[in-house]
Amino acid sequence: MFGFLRRPKVRIDIPRLKPRDDSVSYPKVNLAELTPEVLPYLGQAAYVQLAIFEEISDAMNGAPTVGAKQALAPAAGQALDKHERLVAEIRRRVDTPSEVIEPFVAGIDRYRVLVKGSDWYEQLASVYLTAGILDDFFTLLAAGLPGDIGPRCVAVLDADTARQAVAGLLGEAITDDPVLGSRLAMWGRRVVGDTLLVCRSAIHLTGNPQSDEQRIEPVFTEMIAAHTRRMDGLGLTA
Amino acid sequence: MFGFLRRPKVRIDIPRLKPRDDSVSYPKVNLAELTPEVLPYLGQAAYVQLAIFEEISDAMNGAPTVGAKQALAPAAGQALDKHERLVAEIRRRVDTPSEVIEPFVAGIDRYRVLVKGSDWYEQLASVYLTAGILDDFFTLLAAGLPGDIGPRCVAVLDADTARQAVAGLLGEAITDDPVLGSRLAMWGRRVVGDTLLVCRSAIHLTGNPQSDEQRIEPVFTEMIAAHTRRMDGLGLTA
Repeated sequence: MFGFLRRPKVRIDIPRLKPRDDSVSYPKVNLAELTPEVLPYLGQAAYVQLAIFEEISDAMNGAPTVGAKQALAPAAGQALDKHERLVAEIRRRVDTPSEVIEPFVAGIDRYRVLVKGSDWYEQLASVYLTAGILDDFFTLLAAGLPGDIGPRCVAVLDADTARQAVAGLLGEAITDDPVLGSRLAMWGRRVVGDTLLVCRSAIHLTGNPQSDEQRIEPVFTEMIAAHTRRMDGLGLTA
Repeated sequence: MFGFLRRPKVRIDIPRLKPRDDSVSYPKVNLAELTPEVLPYLGQAAYVQLAIFEEISDAMNGAPTVGAKQALAPAAGQALDKHERLVAEIRRRVDTPSEVIEPFVAGIDRYRVLVKGSDWYEQLASVYLTAGILDDFFTLLAAGLPGDIGPRCVAVLDADTARQAVAGLLGEAITDDPVLGSRLAMWGRRVVGDTLLVCRSAIHLTGNPQSDEQRIEPVFTEMIAAHTRRMDGLGLTA
């Protein structure tokens, strides 16, 4: 079950787009059969964005300078906007979005505690790295949604430009303080496992473990590769 | 100096618009001579909105239900939007908005600690009541800004519709629990003084105490009246 956490020794032969910044650039993997129903997808994706928002705004609250608060503000606004647009999609289908979201609250709240970090820089690194993975994952998963809801969700999720400023704050601090860099490198490796478990829990398994694994493995391999690129971008060894 | 905190025994004869919800409806008081320079005005107003945003997002973080988080989300988004639009106004004038904001950070941070409240409902009541006063005040103060920046700031600030959902959460809880209502009534009276002191500190005094007081007194009287209407709206005795 935890096979996806191991980095494959042999490179899996899937086409790789060249890394550009840390934006999502995945091969056309087929997650369609693994995508949950529309409402559970939306409920989970909406709560993930709310959690990202709350974590960024908490980091704003604890930021040491006004400049740092300002740098985080657009990322907070973007996560909140993603949340609200996903809730609007839920509301097009049912009257009570919170009932759709509720089943995912406990699990994601538990996850948040695990990846919160013990100080402001760990919190920032968590937000930047885990939100990157989660956005990538829910963007990929959206491919399996029926009708036009998939592309609409991709349009909502597939934007992480506002988090470049978070990377900027981290990168500066890491350059200034190698000890911090080494600590955050460990922390960055630490959070990826818990985050992939959250992703894994969102997948609708078909009941055939072998074919499920065959589909999941390359996707998670690519998600880890994108995570590694984000770590590299911060000057951290993944 | 604290005269404005006393409610006048004799009604001051200024035209009063009829209360509609808790929106700003003030007489045409002339605060023009009391308005600070454009940059200090913008810096202070921008940091006030950032503080309101951080307090609402902190309340989202601590909210007991997903429904409560959802109710708070638009208010958080609106405060963040106001902050960013005010920062954009600063950036039209100088390259480093944070330097313009910095002088006001310590004072407003101290104020935030004073009005934070000891639990989630006190925090919500603070956000709703103090943001109401602060939006009203900076809207009034904008009248004294030169050129078209005044009306632009009014357009940014003069909207509190998103906070109606905060009032909704509070009103429900107060109806359900009279003891909470009585506690929040005390708390609501408590926060108004500190908030008016923050407003007072933003005023540019001319150096003539008598004429300054003559201008300030009716404005603060009206701000207190609007606060009382907000308290009434929550079912609290001001």
